Amino acid sequence: MTTTASLANAIRVLAIDGVQAANSGHPGAPMGMAEIAVSLWNHNLKHNPADPKWPDRDRFVLSNGHASMLIYSLLYLTGYDLPLDELKKFRQLHSKTPGHPEVGHTPGVETTTGPLGQGLSNAVGMALGEKLLAAEFNRDGHAIVDHYTYVFLGDGCLMEGISHEACSLAGVWKLAKLIAFYDDNGISIDGHVEGWFADDTPKRFEAYGWNVIRNIDGHDVEAIDRAIAAAKAQTDRPTLICCKTTIGKGSPNKAGTHEVHGAPLGKDEIAATRAALGIDWPPFEIPADILAAWNAKAAGAKQQAAWDERFAAYRKAYPDLAAEFERRMRGELTARYAAGSAEALKDIIDKAEVIATRKSSQNAIQALAPLVPEFVGGSADLAPSNLTMWKGCRELKPASLNEGGNYIHYGVREFGMAAIMNGLCLHGGFRPFGGTFLMFSEYARNAIRMAALMQINPIYVFTHDSIGVGEDGPTHQPVEQTATLRMVPNLDVWRPCDSVETFVAWQVAIEHKTMPTALVLTRQNLAHQARDAAQVAAIRKGGYVLKDCAGAPKAVIIATGSEVALAVAAQQTLAEKGISVRVVSMPSPFAFDAQDKAYRDAVLPPDVPRVAVEAGSTAGWYRYVGLKGAVVGIDRFGECGPAAQVFDYLGITAPKVVEAVERVLAG
Amino acid sequence: MTTTASLANAIRVLAIDGVQAANSGHPGAPMGMAEIAVSLWNHNLKHNPADPKWPDRDRFVLSNGHASMLIYSLLYLTGYDLPLDELKKFRQLHSKTPGHPEVGHTPGVETTTGPLGQGLSNAVGMALGEKLLAAEFNRDGHAIVDHYTYVFLGDGCLMEGISHEACSLAGVWKLAKLIAFYDDNGISIDGHVEGWFADDTPKRFEAYGWNVIRNIDGHDVEAIDRAIAAAKAQTDRPTLICCKTTIGKGSPNKAGTHEVHGAPLGKDEIAATRAALGIDWPPFEIPADILAAWNAKAAGAKQQAAWDERFAAYRKAYPDLAAEFERRMRGELTARYAAGSAEALKDIIDKAEVIATRKSSQNAIQALAPLVPEFVGGSADLAPSNLTMWKGCRELKPASLNEGGNYIHYGVREFGMAAIMNGLCLHGGFRPFGGTFLMFSEYARNAIRMAALMQINPIYVFTHDSIGVGEDGPTHQPVEQTATLRMVPNLDVWRPCDSVETFVAWQVAIEHKTMPTALVLTRQNLAHQARDAAQVAAIRKGGYVLKDCAGAPKAVIIATGSEVALAVAAQQTLAEKGISVRVVSMPSPFAFDAQDKAYRDAVLPPDVPRVAVEAGSTAGWYRYVGLKGAVVGIDRFGECGPAAQVFDYLGITAPKVVEAVERVLAG
Repeated sequence: MTTTASLANAIRVLAIDGVQAANSGHPGAPMGMAEIAVSLWNHNLKHNPADPKWPDRDRFVLSNGHASMLIYSLLYLTGYDLPLDELKKFRQLHSKTPGHPEVGHTPGVETTTGPLGQGLSNAVGMALGEKLLAAEFNRDGHAIVDHYTYVFLGDGCLMEGISHEACSLAGVWKLAKLIAFYDDNGISIDGHVEGWFADDTPKRFEAYGWNVIRNIDGHDVEAIDRAIAAAKAQTDRPTLICCKTTIGKGSPNKAGTHEVHGAPLGKDEIAATRAALGIDWPPFEIPADILAAWNAKAAGAKQQAAWDERFAAYRKAYPDLAAEFERRMRGELTARYAAGSAEALKDIIDKAEVIATRKSSQNAIQALAPLVPEFVGGSADLAPSNLTMWKGCRELKPASLNEGGNYIHYGVREFGMAAIMNGLCLHGGFRPFGGTFLMFSEYARNAIRMAALMQINPIYVFTHDSIGVGEDGPTHQPVEQTATLRMVPNLDVWRPCDSVETFVAWQVAIEHKTMPTALVLTRQNLAHQARDAAQVAAIRKGGYVLKDCAGAPKAVIIATGSEVALAVAAQQTLAEKGISVRVVSMPSPFAFDAQDKAYRDAVLPPDVPRVAVEAGSTAGWYRYVGLKGAVVGIDRFGECGPAAQVFDYLGITAPKVVEAVERVLAG
Repeated sequence: MTTTASLANAIRVLAIDGVQAANSGHPGAPMGMAEIAVSLWNHNLKHNPADPKWPDRDRFVLSNGHASMLIYSLLYLTGYDLPLDELKKFRQLHSKTPGHPEVGHTPGVETTTGPLGQGLSNAVGMALGEKLLAAEFNRDGHAIVDHYTYVFLGDGCLMEGISHEACSLAGVWKLAKLIAFYDDNGISIDGHVEGWFADDTPKRFEAYGWNVIRNIDGHDVEAIDRAIAAAKAQTDRPTLICCKTTIGKGSPNKAGTHEVHGAPLGKDEIAATRAALGIDWPPFEIPADILAAWNAKAAGAKQQAAWDERFAAYRKAYPDLAAEFERRMRGELTARYAAGSAEALKDIIDKAEVIATRKSSQNAIQALAPLVPEFVGGSADLAPSNLTMWKGCRELKPASLNEGGNYIHYGVREFGMAAIMNGLCLHGGFRPFGGTFLMFSEYARNAIRMAALMQINPIYVFTHDSIGVGEDGPTHQPVEQTATLRMVPNLDVWRPCDSVETFVAWQVAIEHKTMPTALVLTRQNLAHQARDAAQVAAIRKGGYVLKDCAGAPKAVIIATGSEVALAVAAQQTLAEKGISVRVVSMPSPFAFDAQDKAYRDAVLPPDVPRVAVEAGSTAGWYRYVGLKGAVVGIDRFGECGPAAQVFDYLGITAPKVVEAVERVLAG
């Protein structure tokens, strides 16, 4: 007969065996959290191993992602499509069991974790997603969206600043279906945490408005069961269950030490641990009775069948809503999107407005929001500057949380915002966009990278994109930020030059399914550029001939964003001097690089000298202009002053572009 | 006769006038914090306007840096070298009054603020600096280091995650001489904060072990005076004084609204405000009696004279310590440093160890620590991985805080660590270095940028620098991080290839006075490269010929860090094929770019084809190889697996370098 102890110990030995086979990894946390895992995964979690994408499953996040053998063990034991062979290949190239859990790579993994604090923040986003979706789709007697989000986390997650940002918001939003388990083992990599982590964590979370359940013995499954029941019994606060645990529990000689955190136990200690746990079966083998007791396929199928039945009733009562819910969860665009957005683009072209691209972005949002009901906009306390709100948006407000909304005031929390946006994407049903100043993309940087790595599609509205910020000075004037964002793999960065490119950038962003998009936008007004239909169509290619010259160009000027107008002015001056140059607008080098060679060569004819101009770092442009070309840019910090004066002082002017072309042509 | 009201109103009108003249800026916070400023700057602050560098001055940090007119007003009023004309040029190009306060630019500004939360964290670093320096230098009856650190902060700073990281540590370290004033005005840019910021902040800070003084009327100078006295009366906790204020106080129609946060009041409202405050003098003019009441020169001179006297007594009793203290505060290296480090370099060369550069870094720290007693090492909970500890280092421990230390366990708090390191640098007397995985430099990114902007010199120990991380997988494998750090202006990034280059990188880092250095180091072992004396000397130039070929090279291979060995292997293979190539090691493109053209051309002969190899983003290398060269690198995310397999899978191998050279030579 299986006992909870035998269920927990099955996790322990799988974790030990996986780490030993890989000769690397983290056995301590899986061993320490085994009983918590039994309570949650064997007694509480609503999931169906046969359908990891069931919309109303509970979400589970392992925020302490280094404990990956814990989730791999659970997925294997409960019956997901993760065979034992994959556990034996833990941390090996192309296995389904990488060192840190990766969403999209392993069935049942809901988010990629490892960078501490972000999983917890993703979980806040998932719980927010559940709440917003429930508000939008549930109807009396039809709770088709009704699941919990559970998260495991350790000291490391709690020390990271992002935990403050996300958990403060979880309190504001009263995310009662968010239940977090704090693996309070008192150990981090440097040793016993009291030397560097002395927070009264329960008190801290109470200060955020959380329901805190203190002093749970993390090795007492029944106590954890009771805590989960208590968490579920209240409906107005997220819950933190503080579980006292012993890291590496089960290891006679290494439990409770930081040695067990991130290294294999070693042969001898494994033998001692097995002996201590009374386990006599070979590595990786779990007896059939324990496997059966863990298997969740039958229970999961039943749970999902019950939901399917409820959903069928919902569909009958609300066929349109049901169809819309399914579309949203599939991540497909509305049928009206394509024609509607094409129409809106025509309007934008006709208007030919001379406005800041941040304003063009707001106009795009305004036009697109009715076509993209899955939009959830927001800003890190810069709504009036980022221009992320639109007429008709519904703000999520503390006084009316149950009514939901599609605009989020994230407060001054850029990293938290980005990680919560990731959680919204991962939950499904939403296309979040969020704004901050381009400079403060740096605060959020690793969450942006994680979105790119996870192949999800949030949209960043980064305004105030250059020295054009002016008087706010060098702390607020981006120089290298656009260039460094362009280096993030699978992140599409757009720096449009006018209202038309801005609208197309929004279209592209919305249409991306497997990558995030950063929109890099000005504070200051930009001229409208005239284009024919072919040029408008070419914007999507990321780089195109905006203003050509008569005959073969002697040089090509490549420009982005606010510097396109300078390039056009320089072209005019050069033409007057008898020098024919072509102006290429390149709002997205990422998209341009994805074009075929014939197109790229047609835009940038090989062997025609090139000059790039952008009010930022030059380093990234040499791959377009080469050693014989030139870049007009900024490789120093900005300066405080009125924007026009700063542009002039730092040499981002049409005459400097003219000079650069002449210099390049002179060889 | 002057009243505290007239002192406060002098700040209000200067702030109003400055913002109005600039037609941009933030009047709300200076107006709201005017009485707090009177209490601190007129009644409490120990400072001497005539000597802003007096070592034992109280430090003052305006963490809500957008309120810059507040500090400019105070500096002008108290008698710093900041004439009224500069206030009239608020936010203008090359004025001393930029939009956000900049250290080194305006006398009396202790740190550059604006990016929220960082000023507060710098202040934690300054208070830590005071504590560590006091422990090291004070002797019975000789408290030569004995000052407070004061910080003004707003809701924005408290929402940012970094406030959690830094304030948690301030509690652990019991920084009783840190006194923070929370400008609790309930307003942020998006409006009334309760919609996104509902923390019980006093409770939160109590959870960090702070002394919290609640519910102070921020417009009652005497109440603030009493709170400061209470804060000073206790000696075991940092203090947060929670001041309820009205943003834009004094403006009859805009006070208490977010309209007054970041825009000029406008002519009419200024007139109304002046009338309401009973001020009839012209813009920017402050009556002589108020100026006199604000002037702190006489009091400051007296305070400093008293300290000078105490320091003279200290010098008499402890001449060596006094000299050492003065050296440290001047930021000069020890007399023994030059010879000692040269000697140590010789040892390193002789040993020719085949070790990871993270280990080489630890060896360098070990050798250099006795020569650089101002070192304060640390790591964000990765001491055993970053190898930042050395034999004989003294850990700062909660049980013995008053004994100080020179090694800090920052916990899992990368951003907080970096901002605290900035505070240590700014305080003076220290050369902080701090470690984390290169990937998590992203969490700290904006604090690194701030160090570069402030022209201070912390040292970052970023280990696990590539796919060489192996089994931890793509979340932990840096790809673009080295390249993006190189784009930060005034940041010197070194990626050394062996123990010798690592040691030289440490020397260069230590010798930098006005820039931070990032050391980018491997997890895995690297071969030793043989060099003659001239080559060793050339390492400092950032790029040099490591292995030349006989005769003129047909191509040059440029490599850094772990890829240098691949370049050398490729050179050998190519030589066997009759193709002579030169190998250039380029540990610091930053240093190389600073060399004269003759040197650069000697290393990289113009028109000789080039191939760069680095296990990371290729984009930055085209400025060295051009359009006709090639880069062997990685423009995608990494993969989990044993390091050697991942290198092979992603094509970072000697054969791929050979292929690239052959491809380039084939044109």
